[in-house]
Amino acid sequence: MKVAAIQMDAGTTAVAERHAAIHRSLKDAAAAGADLVVLPELAPTGYGAGQAIVDTAEATDTGLAEWHTAADRLGIAIVMGLAVRTPQGVDNAAALLAPGSAPVLYAKRMLYGDYEKGLFTPGDAPSPIVEIAGLRCGLLVCFDVEFPELCRDLALRGADVILVPTALPQSDGARFIAQNVVPVRAFENQLFVVYADHCGSDGAFAYQGQSVIAAPDGLVLASAGEHDAAIILADLDPAAYRASRDQNPYLAETRSRRLTAT
Amino acid sequence: MKVAAIQMDAGTTAVAERHAAIHRSLKDAAAAGADLVVLPELAPTGYGAGQAIVDTAEATDTGLAEWHTAADRLGIAIVMGLAVRTPQGVDNAAALLAPGSAPVLYAKRMLYGDYEKGLFTPGDAPSPIVEIAGLRCGLLVCFDVEFPELCRDLALRGADVILVPTALPQSDGARFIAQNVVPVRAFENQLFVVYADHCGSDGAFAYQGQSVIAAPDGLVLASAGEHDAAIILADLDPAAYRASRDQNPYLAETRSRRLTAT
Repeated sequence: MKVAAIQMDAGTTAVAERHAAIHRSLKDAAAAGADLVVLPELAPTGYGAGQAIVDTAEATDTGLAEWHTAADRLGIAIVMGLAVRTPQGVDNAAALLAPGSAPVLYAKRMLYGDYEKGLFTPGDAPSPIVEIAGLRCGLLVCFDVEFPELCRDLALRGADVILVPTALPQSDGARFIAQNVVPVRAFENQLFVVYADHCGSDGAFAYQGQSVIAAPDGLVLASAGEHDAAIILADLDPAAYRASRDQNPYLAETRSRRLTAT
Repeated sequence: MKVAAIQMDAGTTAVAERHAAIHRSLKDAAAAGADLVVLPELAPTGYGAGQAIVDTAEATDTGLAEWHTAADRLGIAIVMGLAVRTPQGVDNAAALLAPGSAPVLYAKRMLYGDYEKGLFTPGDAPSPIVEIAGLRCGLLVCFDVEFPELCRDLALRGADVILVPTALPQSDGARFIAQNVVPVRAFENQLFVVYADHCGSDGAFAYQGQSVIAAPDGLVLASAGEHDAAIILADLDPAAYRASRDQNPYLAETRSRRLTAT
């Protein structure tokens, strides 16, 4: 599977311009041969738009239509972070939209700080595992991936790759998260992690950039810089990491020693 | 608390010479002001000594006496990896020996590969949390620390620092474990990790070196090289990492969302 992560410029705050930028990026990624494209958290509105994110959130049937149509037209699967209205409130969701398939939704469980907790309802369930281009895909959003428990759960349920729309604000810890925590999640579960971030500033937050695609051996297959919009691409082939899995049998040992409740 | 990690040369395979090398290192670390000194896994015998480790293993009352006497005489706490005979078999243990206190024992739970599984009985319980020089200390051995579940358990039980005797064989993944996995365990639990390895070769295995002391913000406070014996030292002050804990509230969120069974 060829995967792309799109790092978006947060400085594009007008919604129509953001939609246009997303469509251009999707077209470019498809032209580059991507089977699956991962966009950042709250991509269509931007992460820092505050109450406007909630006020404009739509239910899945209307809110996802534009992007599902793009997936069908381009013949690619799209994973996008966006707000989704539910009977209970508004989810900070990741949607997986594959051509000709029903949308798959995941609601972020680990909301970060007062900003997110004031806007969104926390999710209460892990994402389904969905096969795309031969790889079993699981979804998380941003802060979720920093918790080893949530990645382990997807790995033990058979995921080959975890797709993570994110909005990582610049901070002392943010570079460490992008460069160390994300690759360690890949290594300790012997799977791929695709982490798509914003860069630049939207006035409310500045972002770390450093989108990354990490492999089961912990090595970085592709990464973006800190400041500029970018598309990064990598071929994901689980069969190429058999030696790493044999040398680092974390999942087999976790199962045999019953380390987790899941 | 001032902590030292002693990286031992595996090429010293004669047991009497190894004991002498350990006593010299302990004296040097004490002279440098260490309150607590961490030695590698199976330090007195070496890691690669095979069946001789089991054949010479003693019960705690006799096997620990020499090292407990050293702790008393030097006025330091010692954490040492060594084999300990029990009624059930032989543990690959970490012993914490503090002046004037009863020994604290932990048996490695995650035995690595056929070599260890053929020699040792796996432990079945986490280590107690013991206060040394004002810090709450927990014990793991080598492969254990690569499992996020075991570090999380110690963190949720209040550990400020995890002390890890290790014997990390050279491999493609070993550098990643020392440089990335160990610091991420510190960061994702907002505590310190002290990781003391062998270097060189004992004929059975070659070792990665790269002993490391990692802080709650993920930064490395001290590290050793890949090839030579070394003593690394650092002052551990949890109060200095309040900003990191506030920005990365992993333990509070793990508790509030009940992510673990423990």
